[in-house]
Amino acid sequence: MSLDEAVEKPHEKLAAYLADDLEAVNALIRERMASEHAPRIPEVTAHLIEAGGKRLRPMLTLASAKACGYDGPYHVHLAATVEFIHTATLLHDDVVDESAQRRGRPTANLLWDNKSSVLVGDYLFARAFQLMTDAQDLRVLRILSNAAATIAEGEVLQLTAAQDLRTDEDIYLKVVRGKTAALFSAATEVGGVLAQQDETVIRALFDYGDALGISFQIVDDLLDYWGSDKTGKNIGDDFRERKLTLPVIKAVAKADAEERAFWQRTIEKGRQEEGDLDHAIALLTKHNTLEETRAVAIEWAERAKAALSALPTGDVPPMLADIADYVVARLR
Amino acid sequence: MSLDEAVEKPHEKLAAYLADDLEAVNALIRERMASEHAPRIPEVTAHLIEAGGKRLRPMLTLASAKACGYDGPYHVHLAATVEFIHTATLLHDDVVDESAQRRGRPTANLLWDNKSSVLVGDYLFARAFQLMTDAQDLRVLRILSNAAATIAEGEVLQLTAAQDLRTDEDIYLKVVRGKTAALFSAATEVGGVLAQQDETVIRALFDYGDALGISFQIVDDLLDYWGSDKTGKNIGDDFRERKLTLPVIKAVAKADAEERAFWQRTIEKGRQEEGDLDHAIALLTKHNTLEETRAVAIEWAERAKAALSALPTGDVPPMLADIADYVVARLR
Repeated sequence: MSLDEAVEKPHEKLAAYLADDLEAVNALIRERMASEHAPRIPEVTAHLIEAGGKRLRPMLTLASAKACGYDGPYHVHLAATVEFIHTATLLHDDVVDESAQRRGRPTANLLWDNKSSVLVGDYLFARAFQLMTDAQDLRVLRILSNAAATIAEGEVLQLTAAQDLRTDEDIYLKVVRGKTAALFSAATEVGGVLAQQDETVIRALFDYGDALGISFQIVDDLLDYWGSDKTGKNIGDDFRERKLTLPVIKAVAKADAEERAFWQRTIEKGRQEEGDLDHAIALLTKHNTLEETRAVAIEWAERAKAALSALPTGDVPPMLADIADYVVARLR
Repeated sequence: MSLDEAVEKPHEKLAAYLADDLEAVNALIRERMASEHAPRIPEVTAHLIEAGGKRLRPMLTLASAKACGYDGPYHVHLAATVEFIHTATLLHDDVVDESAQRRGRPTANLLWDNKSSVLVGDYLFARAFQLMTDAQDLRVLRILSNAAATIAEGEVLQLTAAQDLRTDEDIYLKVVRGKTAALFSAATEVGGVLAQQDETVIRALFDYGDALGISFQIVDDLLDYWGSDKTGKNIGDDFRERKLTLPVIKAVAKADAEERAFWQRTIEKGRQEEGDLDHAIALLTKHNTLEETRAVAIEWAERAKAALSALPTGDVPPMLADIADYVVARLR
């Protein structure tokens, strides 16, 4: 084992700190994803939920509640809610993207069919709403149902914006806030609301989740051109799916006529040929947009850390700061 | 215009009676299906929501609240919630069934793509949950989120049960209760809950919606073999999609070896040939299962009407009884 592997990663450290709560979340997830009548449901969800996701989003809810001194039982329900919304979104995303791999394993739409992915996703959404009503807090319900609407809106916006070269950094940020950051910020915000904190603290938790989610998605988009097999991503998926992300948006803004024609052909028209991905990466490198995108991700991670200063002091804020650093450290 | 067409239909009479409330529901639907960021959303939903559905489900909520003397504003929100859940389900169903037509018009998945149908459906689900939190009633939230889970569960059960000749009438009833009756019974039940009625009344409203929904779906399944162009259904869709419904389940139960082989080939294995639909209808006719299925639908409509006796007397219960009669009158 190399030294690097021996060092505990920040999300593992947080998971260890939250071990009891996380065990309760896992038990609740297993209980609520069961279905008396339709055995296909736990088959599909187990495939995904057991596939070793890092449980980052539910941990954010648990950590936020704990940071605020919450001692009731409902942070567990809300953490499971957040994981169910996330899993439902993954199932539907894989249908929409026609993906074949997720977390290094074949996707549910490939193993079963699109039908199962759509309907089991719906089931998990509904289960998420049942779970959140358990907390009996109307503000929490509003935050999480708003987040669900924002996620779907971001995904639809991406459908139309992703293959349109007029998509600029503002629209990209809207998509990212929708499809990713909305759930991160809801996950952290509800922790503060449950603990009946001051609005300043609740706002800080929201800001941390929002900035962390944005940083996380930018890094994810960057790894699609920069990654290695270690990250579990297939290099060039976004390019092949003609999905405009920040490195390309920045390169399009600097493109000369010939380069613009290249992006039009490959992204807007989708006529891709052998060697196009290499050429795309060469253009990103030429215009230095991979480094520039990395700088944007780091800036958002810094904003996430800055928001933490408004939280009560304790064990949790430094661990949340480490998570923010780790999100961008994936790029090294 | 024939005499028959001149007579007002029961759902039109109810719509006229509820005209003001229904106008408020339509206004709320238009307002909440808008999206600032993603214009694709109102395009898709308008296509479906303006396509002239009868608004039967939201009318059931409005009528139930009115029957119980409710005079607050939230029956409008819950009626819109119910219509959003229904519309989301239709969008996803059309993806799952690979349908090309709905209400006599091309489906959204055909006009746009499956991606839009999946994601806009998710958006409507989320909007539905936002709308129901407006009513600020935790029991209502529980009823509607349970209904959403039951619907998805019924749809998944149908996926695996529909092409399996071992599916019997009990399993069929479970599917129907899930995919159709759960929303009908939630629609009526929440009307009574909002009006803070006795449990007897709330239970009666639930029973009416449950039995009406079951009758409605059995009739729908029957029309797939019995219908005409007037009903807007394509005869034989369920057969072609290899979906076991009550007339076929009853025929399979009475099948001799040769007939069983026919159902195995066409439904279980999906190897259909020219003339198979005619042969299927001939078998249903031979075993009298279309008439038997019609009798079951009528029995459920009678149960729906019987439940109404527990409601406060007034204008509404007789109109709800007429709706139950009309649902099975489609078969004449």
